[in-house]
Parts: sequence; C-alpha cells; structure tokens
Amino acid sequence: MSAKDVLVIAPHPDDETLGAGGTIARSAAAGLKVTVLTVAAHMPPLYSEAVHQKTLAESRKAQALLGAAEPRFLDLPALSLGEVPVAEFNGAIQAVVKEIEPSVVLCPYPDRHIDHRLIFDAVMVATRPVGPGAGIKLLAAYETLSETHWNAPHIEPNFVPSWVVDISATIDLKLQALACYESQVPPFPGPRSLEAARALALFRGTQAGFAYGEGFHIIRMTSAVEELVTGV
Amino acid sequence: MSAKDVLVIAPHPDDETLGAGGTIARSAAAGLKVTVLTVAAHMPPLYSEAVHQKTLAESRKAQALLGAAEPRFLDLPALSLGEVPVAEFNGAIQAVVKEIEPSVVLCPYPDRHIDHRLIFDAVMVATRPVGPGAGIKLLAAYETLSETHWNAPHIEPNFVPSWVVDISATIDLKLQALACYESQVPPFPGPRSLEAARALALFRGTQAGFAYGEGFHIIRMTSAVEELVTGV
Amino acid sequence: MSAKDVLVIAPHPDDETLGAGGTIARSAAAGLKVTVLTVAAHMPPLYSEAVHQKTLAESRKAQALLGAAEPRFLDLPALSLGEVPVAEFNGAIQAVVKEIEPSVVLCPYPDRHIDHRLIFDAVMVATRPVGPGAGIKLLAAYETLSETHWNAPHIEPNFVPSWVVDISATIDLKLQALACYESQVPPFPGPRSLEAARALALFRGTQAGFAYGEGFHIIRMTSAVEELVTGV
Amino acid sequence: MSAKDVLVIAPHPDDETLGAGGTIARSAAAGLKVTVLTVAAHMPPLYSEAVHQKTLAESRKAQALLGAAEPRFLDLPALSLGEVPVAEFNGAIQAVVKEIEPSVVLCPYPDRHIDHRLIFDAVMVATRPVGPGAGIKLLAAYETLSETHWNAPHIEPNFVPSWVVDISATIDLKLQALACYESQVPPFPGPRSLEAARALALFRGTQAGFAYGEGFHIIRMTSAVEELVTGV
Amino acid sequence: MSAKDVLVIAPHPDDETLGAGGTIARSAAAGLKVTVLTVAAHMPPLYSEAVHQKTLAESRKAQALLGAAEPRFLDLPALSLGEVPVAEFNGAIQAVVKEIEPSVVLCPYPDRHIDHRLIFDAVMVATRPVGPGAGIKLLAAYETLSETHWNAPHIEPNFVPSWVVDISATIDLKLQALACYESQVPPFPGPRSLEAARALALFRGTQAGFAYGEGFHIIRMTSAVEELVTGV
Amino acid sequence: MSAKDVLVIAPHPDDETLGAGGTIARSAAAGLKVTVLTVAAHMPPLYSEAVHQKTLAESRKAQALLGAAEPRFLDLPALSLGEVPVAEFNGAIQAVVKEIEPSVVLCPYPDRHIDHRLIFDAVMVATRPVGPGAGIKLLAAYETLSETHWNAPHIEPNFVPSWVVDISATIDLKLQALACYESQVPPFPGPRSLEAARALALFRGTQAGFAYGEGFHIIRMTSAVEELVTGV
Repeated sequence: MSAKDVLVIAPHPDDETLGAGGTIARSAAAGLKVTVLTVAAHMPPLYSEAVHQKTLAESRKAQALLGAAEPRFLDLPALSLGEVPVAEFNGAIQAVVKEIEPSVVLCPYPDRHIDHRLIFDAVMVATRPVGPGAGIKLLAAYETLSETHWNAPHIEPNFVPSWVVDISATIDLKLQALACYESQVPPFPGPRSLEAARALALFRGTQAGFAYGEGFHIIRMTSAVEELVTGV
Repeated sequence: MSAKDVLVIAPHPDDETLGAGGTIARSAAAGLKVTVLTVAAHMPPLYSEAVHQKTLAESRKAQALLGAAEPRFLDLPALSLGEVPVAEFNGAIQAVVKEIEPSVVLCPYPDRHIDHRLIFDAVMVATRPVGPGAGIKLLAAYETLSETHWNAPHIEPNFVPSWVVDISATIDLKLQALACYESQVPPFPGPRSLEAARALALFRGTQAGFAYGEGFHIIRMTSAVEELVTGV
Repeated sequence: MSAKDVLVIAPHPDDETLGAGGTIARSAAAGLKVTVLTVAAHMPPLYSEAVHQKTLAESRKAQALLGAAEPRFLDLPALSLGEVPVAEFNGAIQAVVKEIEPSVVLCPYPDRHIDHRLIFDAVMVATRPVGPGAGIKLLAAYETLSETHWNAPHIEPNFVPSWVVDISATIDLKLQALACYESQVPPFPGPRSLEAARALALFRGTQAGFAYGEGFHIIRMTSAVEELVTGV
Repeated sequence: MSAKDVLVIAPHPDDETLGAGGTIARSAAAGLKVTVLTVAAHMPPLYSEAVHQKTLAESRKAQALLGAAEPRFLDLPALSLGEVPVAEFNGAIQAVVKEIEPSVVLCPYPDRHIDHRLIFDAVMVATRPVGPGAGIKLLAAYETLSETHWNAPHIEPNFVPSWVVDISATIDLKLQALACYESQVPPFPGPRSLEAARALALFRGTQAGFAYGEGFHIIRMTSAVEELVTGV
Repeated sequence: MSAKDVLVIAPHPDDETLGAGGTIARSAAAGLKVTVLTVAAHMPPLYSEAVHQKTLAESRKAQALLGAAEPRFLDLPALSLGEVPVAEFNGAIQAVVKEIEPSVVLCPYPDRHIDHRLIFDAVMVATRPVGPGAGIKLLAAYETLSETHWNAPHIEPNFVPSWVVDISATIDLKLQALACYESQVPPFPGPRSLEAARALALFRGTQAGFAYGEGFHIIRMTSAVEELVTGV
Repeated sequence: MSAKDVLVIAPHPDDETLGAGGTIARSAAAGLKVTVLTVAAHMPPLYSEAVHQKTLAESRKAQALLGAAEPRFLDLPALSLGEVPVAEFNGAIQAVVKEIEPSVVLCPYPDRHIDHRLIFDAVMVATRPVGPGAGIKLLAAYETLSETHWNAPHIEPNFVPSWVVDISATIDLKLQALACYESQVPPFPGPRSLEAARALALFRGTQAGFAYGEGFHIIRMTSAVEELVTGV
C-alpha cells in the first residue's frame, strides 16, 4: 500500500484500456502501482460461462501488458447492477477504495451504457472526501469509445476533457493491450476498432500540444501547486 | 441560382476546408452548387499584402479541388471585425444570403477565435427565419480544429455534434484541399496538421456508423420528413 | 418494409399525437409508412381493464385519422416499466427497430413522467448506430405538452427545438386526432387541452417561419446534404 | 416614490408589451406604480426621424393602455449601443434605478438582438445587491417573441421560465397594447403577430395551471416567505 | 389548514435544518404554519432501532426550536426508497400535499445522496400544477451541506441560488437546531459542522446584500407582482 | 526563470488576493516563484491619480505579505479595456506569458465585471497550447467574491470548483493581505468583507475535506499522473 497508488475502475473488461490504457502504462512505467478494479462481467445468465472466462483472460493479458498490478474483479453480472441493493453495491466499491487508499482514482464517465452510470454513481459515493476518500488527491472520469459519444447531445452530459495526459510514449502499448480483447474489438470502421482508438488519441493529443493523449473530465482535485509542479 | 444551393461561411481561408471540406466535396459531386463566403482576410496592417495574396490563392486552389463554385471574399481585416459597425457587418453577410438564397447554410461554431464568434453572431442575424432567411432549410455550425477545441470546458459552449455527414468517399479530397494551405497547416503533431484532420474525421465517422465523417451542431432545421428521406 | 419508414415511439396512447401528430399526418399524406409503437398501457392493476381497452381504442382511432400504419402495442404496465429487466426492456424495443428498419425515429423527450425517461433510455440503446440502428438517418425527440414543460428549469434537461416541421396543412387533423382521446384530453385551460395543443403549434410555427409547427430536439442525423435538399 | 415600485426595462418600444404587458397591466390595476424605461430608439441615422417619432407615440399609447406610469426614454440609437462607453452606459441605467428605487425589476433576456444583450449586461451591473440595487426584491428576465426564440439551441442561453404570472384577466389589454405598435407588429403568421403573442401566453399559462401567462427567468429574489404569501 | 402554509420536505432528519432552518424559523416567527415532512429514516435493517429513535427525537427537538408545526414522518427506510413502487412512493408524498395544501414547498436539491434524488423526483410529480398542486405558489429546492456540493461539476446539476432569504435574525436559532442533531453533526472541519453551516449562511447572505442567508433554486413560482410586494 | 513558475493574472488590485491569496502564499512558502500580473488600474479619467497610486501601493504591500515575486502592472484603464485593439491586448498578456514561461496559470473566472471577461478571453488566447503556451501544465480560473457570484444563474456561466487547494496554513496570511486593500474591502456584511472571504474559504475547504480552501475551475491540465503524485 502506497500513498501514490492509482485505482482505475472499469465497468467491463476493456473499458480501462479504452479509457485510460496509455495513462496506466505511463504511470506504471514511472513506478506507480496501478490497480484496475473491473466491476461487471459478461457472465451467465445473459452470457455463457465461456464468454465470461474468455473476457477475464483477455483482461488479465491486457492489464499485464500495460504493467498494471494484480487485477481485481468484482464479478457482478453486466446489465443487472441495478438489482444489487444500493448500500451493498456502494459498499463493495468502497471496500476496495478503503483497502488500496489510492491517491488518484479514474472512473468511467456516465454514458450510454447503464452499467457505466450505476458504477459512476457508486464511485462518486465511495470517493467522497470523508473517511476512506479523504486521501484521494484526484478523481477524474475517462471517456469510453462509442458509449461516451452516444450520449444524447445536450440532453445527457457530454464529455469535454479538462485534463489530457500525453501518451505519445505508450500509445502503441495501449493499442496492443486493446488488441488483446479479441471478443470486444471490431474491425475498422467499428466504433471501438483499433483505428478509432488511435484516432481519438491523436485528436486529443494534438489539441493539447502533443502527439497522442487521453482525455479526462476532472471531478475533484485537491493537490497543492507545489505538489503539482514537483515532477515537472 | 437554385433552391438547392449550399452556402458555407468561412471566417478565414482554410476554415471551410477544416470544418466542412468533405461535405463540400460530396455535395458538389452530387451536383449541388456550393458557394464559400470567406469573411476575413490576413491583410495589412496586421499581415503583409504578400501573405494576403498567398492565402487568397491557397483558398482558390483548395476550393477548386473541392468542387466549390466561384469563391466569394468579403476581405475584412482579421482580428478587427469588431470595429465594423454591427449593422454594416450584419448587412454585408445578409446581402450574400439574399443573393444566393441558399437551402443549407454552414457556419463556424463560436469558439476561441474572436472572428469566429463575431461571424457566428452575424450569420445568426442574417439567417433568421424571416425575409431572405425564410427559405433556409438547414443551418448548422461546423467545428474548426484547435480553435473549437480550445473553448474553456463548461464555461464557453463546447462542440457536440448532432449531425455527422459520411465523407468516406471524399476524405482524401478534403486532405488534399487542406494541403493547399501551405501557410496555415503545420506538421504533425500540430493541432491543424493533416494527421489531426484525418483523425478527427475518423473519430467522428466511426462513432456515427461509418469510416470518416464531419460533425455539425444543428441550429435550425425546417425540412419535412418526406423531404429528408427522398434521397435515402 | 421500406427504407423510408418512420417509427414513432409513444410511451402511452396520445403521446404520439401530442408530440408528432401533425408530422405523422404530413408524412403519411406524402406517402411514407409511419408506424407508431406504443410502449406502456393504462392497464391493471393500476388501471381497470375497461380503461385499458378504452385507451387502446382511442389510440387506434387517432392513428387511423392521422394515416399511420397498423398500430403496435407492447402493452407493458404504465408506471412499472422499471420493474422489467433492462436487457429485456431494451430488447423489446430493439426487436421492433430491427423488424421495421426505419429511416427516421421519433421518440419522447425525457421529462417529468418516469415512463418517458425509461423509454427514452431504451430507445437510445436500441437505435445506436450499429447493427439494426445503423440505417437510421434521423433520431429526434418530440415534446409532450405538460410533462415536458414540467421538467425543473436548469436542473433537468429543458426542451429547446432544433428542428421544426411545418404542419400548417395538418394542424386540424392533429387536433381531431387528439380529440379522439376523450379520456386524456381535459377542457381548457387544462395543460393538454386542444387549445393548449393549438397554441404550442402556433408558437413553434411562427418562430420558425410559418403558421403551425411541431418542434423536435435532434439527437443524431446522418443524412448527406444532397439527400436533405432533394425533396426541397 | 414607493417601496412597491416596479421598473420594466425595454430595449426598444414594444418589448415591454411583448415580454411583460399582461404583468404590467395586472400590477397597475392592483395599484402598483409601474415605470417603463425604454433604452434604445429607432432613430437617425439608421432610421428616419419620422419612424423615431412614430414608435415613441406608439409606445406612449401602449403604455397608457396598460396603465403604466409616465414613460421614460433614454433615446440611445438602436444597434449602436456598443459605441457608448461602458461606464457611461451602465451609469445611465443605474441613475434610473437609483431614482425610482424599485422593488421589482423586469429586464430583457439576453437573446438574438445585440441591444438586448448589451442592455441585459448593463441592468445586471445596475441592479447588483449593493448601493441603489440593495432594495430590489426581485430581478427577472422576460422573453421577447422571436428574438428570444432565435438564440441558438444549446450554444447560447435558452429561455426556460421559472416564474409564470397569471395574466388571464389582462391578456386582452396586452394584445390591445401590442396592436398600438402598428409599425412593429406583422400579420399572422409573423413571429411577432398578435396571434403568436396570444399563443405564447396561452401556452405559458396552461403549463402553469391557468389560462394565460407570462413567463420569466428569475435572476435574483430576496423576499422572505412571509412577504411572499401575505398577498396570497 | 391555511392558504399560507409552508411545507418543507426533508429526506432525513437534519436536512430541513441544514437546508432551510433559518427560513423555517423566520417564517414561523412571522406567524406562518410550517410543516416538515421527513421521508426516510435511519431504521433497521441498515441502522439499529436505537439510532432510529435517537434521530427521531433529535428531529422533534430541532423542529420545536425552529417553531415548526407538528412533525410528520413517513418512516421509509433510508437507502431503500428505490424499492418502493413508484406510484406508491409518489402517492405517499402527494397525500401530504393534498392534506396540507401548502402555498410554498421547499424540497431537497437532487444531489449526491440517492434518497435526495428519489425524493426530488417524487416531489416534482406531487407538486405538478394540477389537482392538489395547483395552489402552490412557490416550489424551490434547498442545498444540503456536503451532499449538494459533492455533485460532479458539470456532469450532474450544480446548485446555484436564484433566491436567498435573509436569515440574519434566525441564524443563531438555526445553529442551535442543528446542534440538536448530535448523531449527525461532526466537529470542525467536518463538512456538516456548525462552523461550515455558519460559513455557508454568511457566504450566501453577503453575496445577496445582507449578513446571513439561505439559498434556494426556484423551480416554479406563480405569484403575481402585487402579491410579492405586499409584504415588502 | 524556472519551469516551476506560477503566474497569477489579476484584473485589478485585490483580485489576486481574493481569488488565490492563500494558494499564492502556500506556493511561495514551498519555494515556488509566483508572479502576479495586474492588468487594469483604477486610473484617470475614471479615477483620480491619487486612487491609482493608493491601489498600487496596497497591491505591492499585499503581494509582499503573500510572498509573491516582483509585481507586474500593465496599467490599462479599468472599464475601458474594450477600447484596446484585440490583437494588441492579447499581445500584451502573451508577452508576459512568453517571458515568464509559467507551469501554472491562474486567471479570473469570466463574471459580472466586464474587465474580468475581457481578460479571461485574452488569457485564453495567450495560453493556447502552442508556442509560449505549450509549456503550461495547468490553467485554472479562480472565483472573485461578489463579481463571480453575481453572474445570472443559468444564463451566464456559474462557478463550480473542480480543484480546491488546502489553505488552512495560509488563511490568516490571505486575510492580512486582503486587509491591506483598505480602499477596496468594506466592513461586514459587505460582499468583499474579511468575514465573507473567511466564510467562503471555510465553505470551500470543509466541502473538500479540510478546514480552509480556495476553489478553482480547471480549464486545461496536462500533467502526467507520476508528476501529480510525486509531491504527495
């Protein structure tokens, strides 16, 4: 356990890579411990157990490539999270926050996929700046190709990044990790294709002053200026 | 003059190509008359006359590639539009709307560049659904690489597309036209580089169901459903 | 089955007429096939079976007046949609989209009535630009008198039309269809009275350049310009 | 001068009637003193002196019908307000606030017309809750037919009422006052026609629980509950 | 029963004091009847019966200090409101509105706490301007320290007051009432500490022209101007 | 010149202290070089030269207390910034950015005071992530007591902090610095009184997990995670 831990919360296997793969790889390469908590799973009865095991294996492989720490899976059934009592659901996520005591938490933006919304809500409760959440210096939401961009314009919240991390050095690793998800990544011009992921990174990066980037919506930051610029 | 004319309003040379180049090329290829009205110019005293002539020449070359009709230039000085009296400025744009009687008007999104904002305001007045503006079936705003994405998140308006045109067949033409602007297009990873323009088109396209697209924010549409689906 | 089909999704009987009756009538008169899918019903145990049958009969009569195709009813219990598992609920709507393959989908704006919100969410999933949703050229949300205007200002989304259809030729038909809903339409000054419906249409129309109109919030359009202006 | 004075600020002659005519008439009938301050005028050089005098006369006639107090005109040239130094412009409006010491101020919503925006800004400065503004109990913005509804959806602010005044008893007087503006009111289906004004009032009213209403966006209210319910 | 009744809806014991304690005290002192309806309770199985009884006792004591009328408790289990059928939940709140016939309703802003959101939704249905809700002159949402300020910026709605009540004369009473909630109020610098409550009141007040204030977001007001200024 | 420089841009003397005084003091105490650029001055003809000199002296004294570096004053006339040509105005601010090469830039939120808006616009241009702006790791806007909270709710942008700096150790220094501005700070309950400044800091701090804080709206951050947590 370290004050510099990073916790990435993924609704389903692949979301952590789509949304923050380059940042995970860069952070890990810099010596930080990055733990990915995957909340939901493609499991029975909606999915076969074979699919379940395949996506878990893909996730382990992708996370290893990125340099993340031992993967954590809550293994709750995808598309049925609303059936878990709220207090229990919030508690399951809060327990991980309490155990890891992360400095940085990255979570999904609330978007088209109902699991992303329910997990966003639970993360927001689990990371409140009291109790286990008091030590979190930065809470930010990442975008998930397709789901995030399918929110209805100006009816539902629309993603606009306030934070862009330079992932020029890890874009290739991100795409290799994404390629591990054979069951989830469609060929071009699929909305989650490797080409789409590269294009989004190039677009975010060039608009922020570098080549490839990952964009985040900052929800709460409490770092002091001297903490922010120490590593510059 | 035809009921099917398209009018694209560009603040400066290159904005029409960055924002709507693929759509211009596709529309022209389909037989529509597309006129580009460029409002401001890089002219003395802020710019040399040589720069002025060079950008005009680049614009003529790019527009010819895209298949646009005879270019129109208002030749007002960039960064000094606020010094033109409002009634006169609105009138200059309204005169073109009155003459062309377009069915579709594409204008810049109000963004980081003050000229884009002032022109947006003037277009909004010139296209009101009365008098010369009554025949306009569709008014939409395009995004301009860098300027549009440099609006402050959640303080200034942030671009979210409600309309995406499939430009898979004309993306190459768009990039060729953009390459004509030697004075304006920086090398990668510049925010207006050819690579950034291609990435944005690929991102917009894949999120809308195809390969390459151009995104627009629809401001006002008055087409009937039977008009909309006739060409499908 | 035709590439030019229109699908109107109504939470309850009368919503399709309140929100899009004039557009349905105009589209049908122009030769388009317009199918109305009514999702929820005023059925036992919250309502008597007599009320259920009466509202179904009113809906059939109103839809016939407007010229819509054979009505579709999912017959799910009003105010209990949240109890249907999400995957099942989304699937029920998606099945209709898959069967009809519409070019245009009109759905309710998410507003005061919880059924409208849940159906909006399900439609948004069912019409994503992949699989059966890839052929949809236009997805838009209509306003429902009273429910839409009872969203809390600036806390919940507030309806602002980006698309207004000229229904001057069909406003009378719309009001006749609305009058079929004897069980739902209160006398003036009721919020869903015939007078209120006429006033809203006149207000929307005159602000858009004609006499009577229906306003929509465009969520996603992928038509090309030459498709849009062909019918002008 | 009375603690119960109402000040209505109109950009041009007719805006006070379009936006708040029914409320002015109701307030005056209840014994309140309502003063209308008209800021801009249709005057030379953009308009002829004949037009100027005609609109002033129309305004006097309309205000008399509504029962307003002696009209106030700043007589600044329409469409040229931006040329008045900011401190001077703010000061001119602040001087009237200081003199009248109103309890309630009604001002235009910032919309399509640039004069409305500049006047909105100046009113916001003049009514700050310090000095002469400290006694203002309620500051609210009214909607102006056409201009307010021509703001770009979701780019510019869009009017949504948080306050609706029941003008069922004064709707006829409002329309008679509006009819005084022969130079400004077009025939149906003009966006400022009498029919459009009646329809908007009926729409606002029926959605708020009565027959005819005028909608306002409350900017700042400081009344106590016991003050609010005394008159109920 | 009186036309001047005020109904304050509190999700849990202490919310009425945090959000509107000063306004309750001022209104009661002015002779109005103010009823607090507390919807949820800290009860078994999530909380012990001892906690339940303690919070009820604290609430009775605090409300008595503020001068509120006989307390009303719905006693629904906190964090499980979503399990009550929607029609039943809305009905429970609507029954109280029907019985009390309030002129003014104050409800929680929809924020971080899911109970606040569900109660907000139910209040919005129960207070619609039809039937029992037609007599409500003012519906406004109060802010709850911590929960309201933990909504995600620009993703979820963010509280901005349009109405501030001067509670300079009752701030001490508010803080005394808050101190009754021994089980809920943490020491400074806790987010719901007495110091935080005083600071928020001082901040809201000084920005509105006086010393201490309580801020509200007005959702719907239908008072006439002469009603508003009678008590001034 | 250092890669860790902080640049605070103040519209007028006192804004830097009101908005970021505690953060300036904390950063300076931690060894960072913090430069305050004051753009406008209370100078003739709107103000006397005596006032001008007094406010400059107050600013020097306050900045010295906070530990800021040598003060920079552009000495442009308050309330007349709009009369400076845009290119020249942007250039004046950009020149300072170019010279200082800051890692962090803090600027005013665009609010009620027109100078704040114009300076915000110019800063946004001067700090674009190209040229001299490419090295900026963090750009954020601070709130200014009264002016920021007098923006019209939901018409103009409303401040909601995404970043709160713990200034518990420097709140006293901030208030001492504020007290230096004898000409600007009114007694309680003035909107810029010392009591109001302390209350805002206590409110922001307690909602973020500590005692006193300063809130900022993050516009653009490009730090990597390992840079962010190095100093934690």
